[in-house]
Amino acid sequence: MDRGRLESFSDGVFAVAITLLALNLTVAGPGHGRLLNLLGHSWPAFAAYVVSFFTIGVIWVNHRSLFSGLARVDRVLLFLNLLLLLFMVAIPFTTATLSDYLRRGGENAHIAAALYGLVMTGMGISFALIFNWAIRRGLMIETMTKKARRDAQLRFGLGMVVYIIATGVSFLSAPAALVCYGAVAAYYVLEHTPAGPTAPSD
Amino acid sequence: MDRGRLESFSDGVFAVAITLLALNLTVAGPGHGRLLNLLGHSWPAFAAYVVSFFTIGVIWVNHRSLFSGLARVDRVLLFLNLLLLLFMVAIPFTTATLSDYLRRGGENAHIAAALYGLVMTGMGISFALIFNWAIRRGLMIETMTKKARRDAQLRFGLGMVVYIIATGVSFLSAPAALVCYGAVAAYYVLEHTPAGPTAPSD
Amino acid sequence: MDRGRLESFSDGVFAVAITLLALNLTVAGPGHGRLLNLLGHSWPAFAAYVVSFFTIGVIWVNHRSLFSGLARVDRVLLFLNLLLLLFMVAIPFTTATLSDYLRRGGENAHIAAALYGLVMTGMGISFALIFNWAIRRGLMIETMTKKARRDAQLRFGLGMVVYIIATGVSFLSAPAALVCYGAVAAYYVLEHTPAGPTAPSD
Amino acid sequence: MDRGRLESFSDGVFAVAITLLALNLTVAGPGHGRLLNLLGHSWPAFAAYVVSFFTIGVIWVNHRSLFSGLARVDRVLLFLNLLLLLFMVAIPFTTATLSDYLRRGGENAHIAAALYGLVMTGMGISFALIFNWAIRRGLMIETMTKKARRDAQLRFGLGMVVYIIATGVSFLSAPAALVCYGAVAAYYVLEHTPAGPTAPSD
Repeated sequence: MDRGRLESFSDGVFAVAITLLALNLTVAGPGHGRLLNLLGHSWPAFAAYVVSFFTIGVIWVNHRSLFSGLARVDRVLLFLNLLLLLFMVAIPFTTATLSDYLRRGGENAHIAAALYGLVMTGMGISFALIFNWAIRRGLMIETMTKKARRDAQLRFGLGMVVYIIATGVSFLSAPAALVCYGAVAAYYVLEHTPAGPTAPSD
Repeated sequence: MDRGRLESFSDGVFAVAITLLALNLTVAGPGHGRLLNLLGHSWPAFAAYVVSFFTIGVIWVNHRSLFSGLARVDRVLLFLNLLLLLFMVAIPFTTATLSDYLRRGGENAHIAAALYGLVMTGMGISFALIFNWAIRRGLMIETMTKKARRDAQLRFGLGMVVYIIATGVSFLSAPAALVCYGAVAAYYVLEHTPAGPTAPSD
Repeated sequence: MDRGRLESFSDGVFAVAITLLALNLTVAGPGHGRLLNLLGHSWPAFAAYVVSFFTIGVIWVNHRSLFSGLARVDRVLLFLNLLLLLFMVAIPFTTATLSDYLRRGGENAHIAAALYGLVMTGMGISFALIFNWAIRRGLMIETMTKKARRDAQLRFGLGMVVYIIATGVSFLSAPAALVCYGAVAAYYVLEHTPAGPTAPSD
Repeated sequence: MDRGRLESFSDGVFAVAITLLALNLTVAGPGHGRLLNLLGHSWPAFAAYVVSFFTIGVIWVNHRSLFSGLARVDRVLLFLNLLLLLFMVAIPFTTATLSDYLRRGGENAHIAAALYGLVMTGMGISFALIFNWAIRRGLMIETMTKKARRDAQLRFGLGMVVYIIATGVSFLSAPAALVCYGAVAAYYVLEHTPAGPTAPSD
């Protein structure tokens, strides 16, 4: 099976999910006081929007990098990819919940931040499953050296570990957890190691 | 006519519909009590989300498999495909209605579960129409053996029969119907028989 | 300029618009009486959904047919295509407005039906502009015979004339206008004459 | 890295964002007086819809033109493109805010118009960053002459300067600022100079 429609369907889901994030950007209409104040009070929505936007963006960049190394896909990979999308598509929901509860603090903010982290962790696990399945089944164009494989696993693993830690941090401070989530996205944006064996010239 | 835009348009509709499912994942904002309780009360929304997500995912996987076997498409197939999409696009609506009414039980929950089943049945019938039209008009790349055709019809038919039964089950128990709908998705995820004649090496 | 991204962007817009139609399918949650009654009262939403779904579907089929005959696109065609999409994207809005007001009748229903017709007319005019520009500028793969061109213009023109008439009918009866809009979609679904010179074997 | 998925993902985001603009087109349901009056009072929503639609359309046309000139993409370009999409995806939000506040005038309308301008400016800056990165890193298919590069920079720069000026104008008059935003879109629709070195035959 070639990967054409797998990529175009996934690109569509990524595109819709990243755009739906912006549906959470709203302010009350006229009659609710000064717009400048309303916008100021919405800072959690803007912060969560930027973090989630670049998080989905990074997943897309890594997805593109990983899948460009696939010679073929099998039925299991299609469903592992759906599992990844299941979590990814839930990000606008967890983002909205987090930004609704972030400013108030207290137990609800902790729960909202932990929910966000759980979905991110599920997404990270799905990504790792896809990667390991592709390696084990020999779906990649080139066989990776043991070292290259371990490096890639380390890179994916690092994000997952931070997501799990940040989920724990949520119960201490929701804003601190959001900073952690943003740091993972920033890390993947800034680091330049190619994700797959087929992109040595990035 | 080549199938390029038919596939890319369909992929777009699948992508949007599967992502819109998540719009139904919402909890009331601050001031409605403990978030953990709100999330707990939303379990029907989460359960229905997962079932519908994998249902649409399975339709997409089968759509991809069937259409990869087409040598060409004709105008009738374009409109049969639109009929399939008409039902598929209604899934976020029936999912939202089911999850709204599921917990309360009673007649309304039965109706909501039956509505969900009717849309699934319509979708299954559309899929069967596409398959049979493609066979009869010789649109497939390879002519299928009689046995292969009957196997494929059995596979599609099985889902449809369960959908019809589950629609009936709805009037006894809405949660039981949802379990049936989930079982159909799980069946197609787990079985490995390729859907079309062109994918013998899946 | 090749037409690759023009088609994929347009397909995306078609896919989103046709799926957003279903956002208008909602019923009030628990506590508003029998769901069966709520669904029954929503018949205008279901009728308008089906009509608009097949209308957008037909536009897509015709768009695909017309553009498959283009050897190249120019900048003007890109913007004429945007004009077409401007009207097409407004269809979920006019559909929602029509289905909100349809049952009540009276002046508001007439206005809602006429608004629907105006957007359809604008869409039809945009389609005609694209077709005529492509012919005049020699963007088509094959030059059409005078007869083929006139036939195609007749086919496009027929829908437009019915849209204009139905817009007028709106002021007599909104449901009658909806029937006219549905009849146009049904006509294009059922007639088999290929839309462009490049599809003689459809 | 080839630009296939970069373009298809971007096309998806453009398609969703341009279609979500129409979600802002709504009128109150029955029981709020004459529909004709409701539509008349919604003129700011219609005006802002048309301006934003063609603005996103123009960004897409220019994006298509610029990227068609790229021989390859690198990781930095992927993230600069995400930055562009971050602002582009926020346009439905700023459009909705502007159309909500436009009619009332006063300080809130000024803030809403300036917010719109800020997002446009951010989008313009992102576009300039992509262009300059592509030139500096030699990602283009053909090296541009110094003159061609300066011409292109002038063209992109002009829009950005008008966006900055219009953001200032917002504090004098929100409708005047909207006219400026519309004028930028109209300018790019009407001028015919190709945006990149690879499109001399447009």
